[in-house]
Amino acid sequence: MNSLNEIACFLMSRDNFVILTHQYPDGDTLGSAFALCRALRKLGKKARVIVNGVLADKFAFMCDDLEEQCFDYETVIAVDIASVTLLGDLSEEFAGRVDAAIDHHAMNSPFAKYTYENPQAAANAENIFELIKLIGVEVDKKTADCIYTGLCTDTGCFKFSNVTPQTMRMAAELMELGCDSALINRVMFDTKSMARIRIESAALNTLAMYCNNKIAVIYTSLQMEKDAGVRESDTDGIAALPRQIEGVIIGITIKEKQAGKYKISVRTTDGCDAASICRAFGGGGHHAAAGCAIDGTLEEVREKLVTEAKKALCG
Amino acid sequence: MNSLNEIACFLMSRDNFVILTHQYPDGDTLGSAFALCRALRKLGKKARVIVNGVLADKFAFMCDDLEEQCFDYETVIAVDIASVTLLGDLSEEFAGRVDAAIDHHAMNSPFAKYTYENPQAAANAENIFELIKLIGVEVDKKTADCIYTGLCTDTGCFKFSNVTPQTMRMAAELMELGCDSALINRVMFDTKSMARIRIESAALNTLAMYCNNKIAVIYTSLQMEKDAGVRESDTDGIAALPRQIEGVIIGITIKEKQAGKYKISVRTTDGCDAASICRAFGGGGHHAAAGCAIDGTLEEVREKLVTEAKKALCG
Repeated sequence: MNSLNEIACFLMSRDNFVILTHQYPDGDTLGSAFALCRALRKLGKKARVIVNGVLADKFAFMCDDLEEQCFDYETVIAVDIASVTLLGDLSEEFAGRVDAAIDHHAMNSPFAKYTYENPQAAANAENIFELIKLIGVEVDKKTADCIYTGLCTDTGCFKFSNVTPQTMRMAAELMELGCDSALINRVMFDTKSMARIRIESAALNTLAMYCNNKIAVIYTSLQMEKDAGVRESDTDGIAALPRQIEGVIIGITIKEKQAGKYKISVRTTDGCDAASICRAFGGGGHHAAAGCAIDGTLEEVREKLVTEAKKALCG
Repeated sequence: MNSLNEIACFLMSRDNFVILTHQYPDGDTLGSAFALCRALRKLGKKARVIVNGVLADKFAFMCDDLEEQCFDYETVIAVDIASVTLLGDLSEEFAGRVDAAIDHHAMNSPFAKYTYENPQAAANAENIFELIKLIGVEVDKKTADCIYTGLCTDTGCFKFSNVTPQTMRMAAELMELGCDSALINRVMFDTKSMARIRIESAALNTLAMYCNNKIAVIYTSLQMEKDAGVRESDTDGIAALPRQIEGVIIGITIKEKQAGKYKISVRTTDGCDAASICRAFGGGGHHAAAGCAIDGTLEEVREKLVTEAKKALCG
């Protein structure tokens, strides 16, 4: 493990950077990457970001003004990538070649020459903001937008328990640096596609409650997604819905991926362990949010999950 | 108009306080009132809050540990009450008798002997936090919870354009004072009753779009509310739904109050003026959020609103 200052010194000593994001890139990995890219270019370095998958329209503002730079890369940086498996399709080219990894997750198997991990940070963008200050370049308006997007998307707009006083103060500072906080919040948290509205409504129509309404289960099928006309990004956050129901302690979302194959998301509250439920099916995750995959019929899958959920509720 | 310091000196010179909240009391008026009540009691004063309507369950924590104090009141304070009409049922007893009013709205017709207004504050709770510091008493955990609730509820959990760097820094400070920010956020923003889920779904089923999907209209009828089993608080925020749809600039919610009588909420974005639409029907409000009342059949009401909305869109 290295200090953030060591990472800063390393970056300043190198050039020709590629910055990698994790697969299914979200606001934090993208915000971290484009903010760092902008800072390195301000230092006079060459840098580009590799978006590891589809760049959602709502994140396009992060790079719409960045000129393309063609160069042979020399230095590889990974941001918000806790494990080498999250490199996905980039593994073949970059696994084993990462020079520095900067993350806010605890890394069980560090994979880079230099590693900075800070699990106290709500978003990796917090680490990047501090890193850019250490590098000593100005944080301009666009860079502030990128960092703010990381902060707000990884905290549910400052709602989740990972938020610290530092998160709030950094957001204040970014606002003073000119970031479009209200617009970013509206785009990230207050805008739903018609398809999203349809799939939410359809999913809630499948709601089943167990154990005195402490366990809530919803599902989405391929047919429901087709009827609603959803793209992948339209179903982000659907897994949060069942746990939001008043009194629910365990919220389970069953998503059909292929016929007979389901992806499961479990969200819990009140100290009930989501990861233990998912481990019973070979999955895992955090205490309040975990996932797994189960094959079978919908009824079988639901019954297995409810059985494990009941154990977690009593345990 | 007075300075906050003048208000602080006035409070310190008096005793036997009643603190008034506005009708249909929300998190900010209640948080302001209970925080101030606690601070005055810490000063050794007698103080109580008059809840101007029903105290929703989710706000009960603000006063569950406060002992009742019986006394003849001498000093009347109004918090988050921009106009004497918002006193509602308390008007008869208190209109003309308010000693100090503390608000974050601009007051067109000040009604108290001492008035502090600060429209830069996102929530009135910001003013109360500063006031308590001027009074010089400790902000304990419960007081911090009350102030934080005011901040987060009036800003949509730090999402709206009224949030300033000061709002974020105050939230950071309240977290350091021990407030249960994550729990409060979950209760205020991440918990829905089953009735709320049903009425949202029913309302979205009435969605009608106009002007190339730039105007969205939903309605709720008394029958729909009955079928969903809603209480008044279950419909808070329903008016935000149509404007959240991707591409929508004007979102209109028509709520049946009695047969042939409708309450209208208009929410806009991209600089379109909601208040101008509502003024056409004798209502008013802010640029992005306004309201009015219209009588007629549902179809008449909808047609009138869409006609005005089209004008606002072009204007």
